[in-house]
Amino acid sequence: MHMQMIEIQQEMQLLRQRMNTFAPLADTTPNFALESQGARVKHYLSSDSYWPQEDVGIMWNRIFYWWYSAKAQRHVIQGYSSLKPGKCWSFAGERGHLFISLSHPIFITNVTLGHITKSQCPHGYIASAPREFSIYGMRNTDEEGTFLGQQVYDQDGEAFQTFALPNPDIGVFSHVKLQIENNWGNVDHTCVYSFRVHGKLRT
Amino acid sequence: MHMQMIEIQQEMQLLRQRMNTFAPLADTTPNFALESQGARVKHYLSSDSYWPQEDVGIMWNRIFYWWYSAKAQRHVIQGYSSLKPGKCWSFAGERGHLFISLSHPIFITNVTLGHITKSQCPHGYIASAPREFSIYGMRNTDEEGTFLGQQVYDQDGEAFQTFALPNPDIGVFSHVKLQIENNWGNVDHTCVYSFRVHGKLRT
Amino acid sequence: MHMQMIEIQQEMQLLRQRMNTFAPLADTTPNFALESQGARVKHYLSSDSYWPQEDVGIMWNRIFYWWYSAKAQRHVIQGYSSLKPGKCWSFAGERGHLFISLSHPIFITNVTLGHITKSQCPHGYIASAPREFSIYGMRNTDEEGTFLGQQVYDQDGEAFQTFALPNPDIGVFSHVKLQIENNWGNVDHTCVYSFRVHGKLRT
Repeated sequence: MHMQMIEIQQEMQLLRQRMNTFAPLADTTPNFALESQGARVKHYLSSDSYWPQEDVGIMWNRIFYWWYSAKAQRHVIQGYSSLKPGKCWSFAGERGHLFISLSHPIFITNVTLGHITKSQCPHGYIASAPREFSIYGMRNTDEEGTFLGQQVYDQDGEAFQTFALPNPDIGVFSHVKLQIENNWGNVDHTCVYSFRVHGKLRT
Repeated sequence: MHMQMIEIQQEMQLLRQRMNTFAPLADTTPNFALESQGARVKHYLSSDSYWPQEDVGIMWNRIFYWWYSAKAQRHVIQGYSSLKPGKCWSFAGERGHLFISLSHPIFITNVTLGHITKSQCPHGYIASAPREFSIYGMRNTDEEGTFLGQQVYDQDGEAFQTFALPNPDIGVFSHVKLQIENNWGNVDHTCVYSFRVHGKLRT
Repeated sequence: MHMQMIEIQQEMQLLRQRMNTFAPLADTTPNFALESQGARVKHYLSSDSYWPQEDVGIMWNRIFYWWYSAKAQRHVIQGYSSLKPGKCWSFAGERGHLFISLSHPIFITNVTLGHITKSQCPHGYIASAPREFSIYGMRNTDEEGTFLGQQVYDQDGEAFQTFALPNPDIGVFSHVKLQIENNWGNVDHTCVYSFRVHGKLRT
C-alpha cells in the first residue's frame, strides 16, 4: 500500500515535469514582456543577430537579414510555451543582449528564461544555451540602466526557469535589458528561445 | 496516510486545472466552428471590430482595418488552446455579435467560450471579458435566427467554459450567432478570444 | 481506502492520455525530421497533394496549387503537438509517400505518426488516417532505399503513436521515406498530420 502511494507520487511528479515543459507555470501569472500585450523589442538597442553567411554586402541579403533578424528577436517575446529546436534568436559569441520595452511600467519581481532541454537535442547537450545573465531596468531608452540581479540558467533544469530578483522594490521600470554574460560552451553563438518578465504594477 | 491521500488529490486537482487552461477538455470532442474544418466567420454579418484610432478615413488605414478586422475575427474560430493576452477580437462597447457558418449542419448541444484568466492579466481583472451571451441558430444567412439559450461566462472560472444548451433537439442549424449581451465592466470594448460549437450530426 | 487509490490511478491515467494528445511524449526526445532543426521535405520526390478541383490548367491555379502543396507537406514536419482537424497534408487515394531529408544522419530507432483522434472528428471515424505504412532509409536522394520496417497506425489509439523499428543498427541514413500503404477506408484521399523520426547519431 505504501509502495503504491510512492509510485503515484512519482508518476504525478513526471506529469508535472512534462506539463512544465509545454505549459510553463510562469504563464499563469502576467508577463509584461509579451508582444501581444504591447511589449516590443528595440532592435537598434539589441545585439546583432548571428548570421553564418559571410557576405551580407549585397542588398537583397541585407534586406533579408533585417527581416529575419527582427522576426527572430520578436519570437523571444511572443510567449511560446512549446519550444522547438532551432526556433530561436541567436547572436554571435557568448555575450549579447536584448532590449525590451515592457507593456506596462512595473516593479520587476521575477523573470523567466526558456530554452529547449538537453533531452530534446540531437547531441544531448545545449552548449549554446545562456548560462549567466544579468537583468537591467530602465525608465527610458537613453538611460544607463539599473542592475537588478544576475542569475544562472541551469543547463540540466526544466525548459522554463523562473528567477526571483533580489530587490524588486528598487524602482518602477518601463524597459528591461536581458544581458547574456556567457553560455554553456558554444564559442560560436548563443541561442535565446523565450523570455518573460513578471512584476507588480504601481498601485 | 489519509493526509497524504488528500494532498495527492489536491495536487491532481491543480494539474487538471492547469491542463484545462492550455489544452481545454472541449478539444477532445468535435468543434463545428473550427476554421480548418471548414467553418467561416461571416464578416459582413458580424459586429465591426474595435478601432481606437479616430481617423479611418484615409484609404490605407481602411485597407489595414479590413485586413486586421478579418484576421481578428477569424482568430476566434481557429481553435487556439493556449490563449495569449491581447490576441483576441474586440468590438466597441459591450454588445456585439459574431456570425459563423459551421463546418457541418448540426443539432447544437454545447458551446465553449474561452478568455484569458484573471491570473494572466496585468491588473488582475478581466473587465472586457464577455458576461451574458446568447446563442442563435440559423439555417441560412437571411434567417432571423432561433434563440437557443443564454448563459453567463464566469469571470472567476477556468479559461475555457463549456455550456449546455437547454433544447439541443430544437433543430439542425448550419449557422450560429454568438451574441454578447454585456461584459464584466469595461465600457469601452469587449474581447472575444475563442469560441467552439459542439453538437450532433443528423443521423 | 483501496477504492480511493484505484480512483486516483484512473484519474491520473486520464490526465496522462490528455497530455499525450496535446504534448506527445515523443517530443521529449530529439526529432530528426523537424523543419526548424534543418529537416526538409523533398517536394519533387513526394506524392502529389490531393486537389479536389478538376481544373488546375489555368496558370494562377497552378501557382496556388504549388504554394499550397508545399505548405501542406511542410506542415507534417513542423512538429505541431496540438493537431487541428483539417490542418494536414492529403494525397489522392490510399497509397502515397513523403520524402524527407533529415537534419542529421542517424541510426533510425523509432518513428512517430500523428493524426487527430476519432473523438475529435465530426463523424466519429478517421477513415482517411494512415493504416499500414513502411519506412525506408536512404543515404542520398538517388538511392533505392533500405526497407526499415512496416507498421500499423491504430485508428483507436492515441493521437501520436511511436513505433520501434526492428533493425535500428542496419545503417546510418540522411533521408527517410514515409510510404503510406493504405488507409482506414477512405477511397478518395489520405491525410497525414504529423511525422517524427527518432534515432541515434553515429558516435
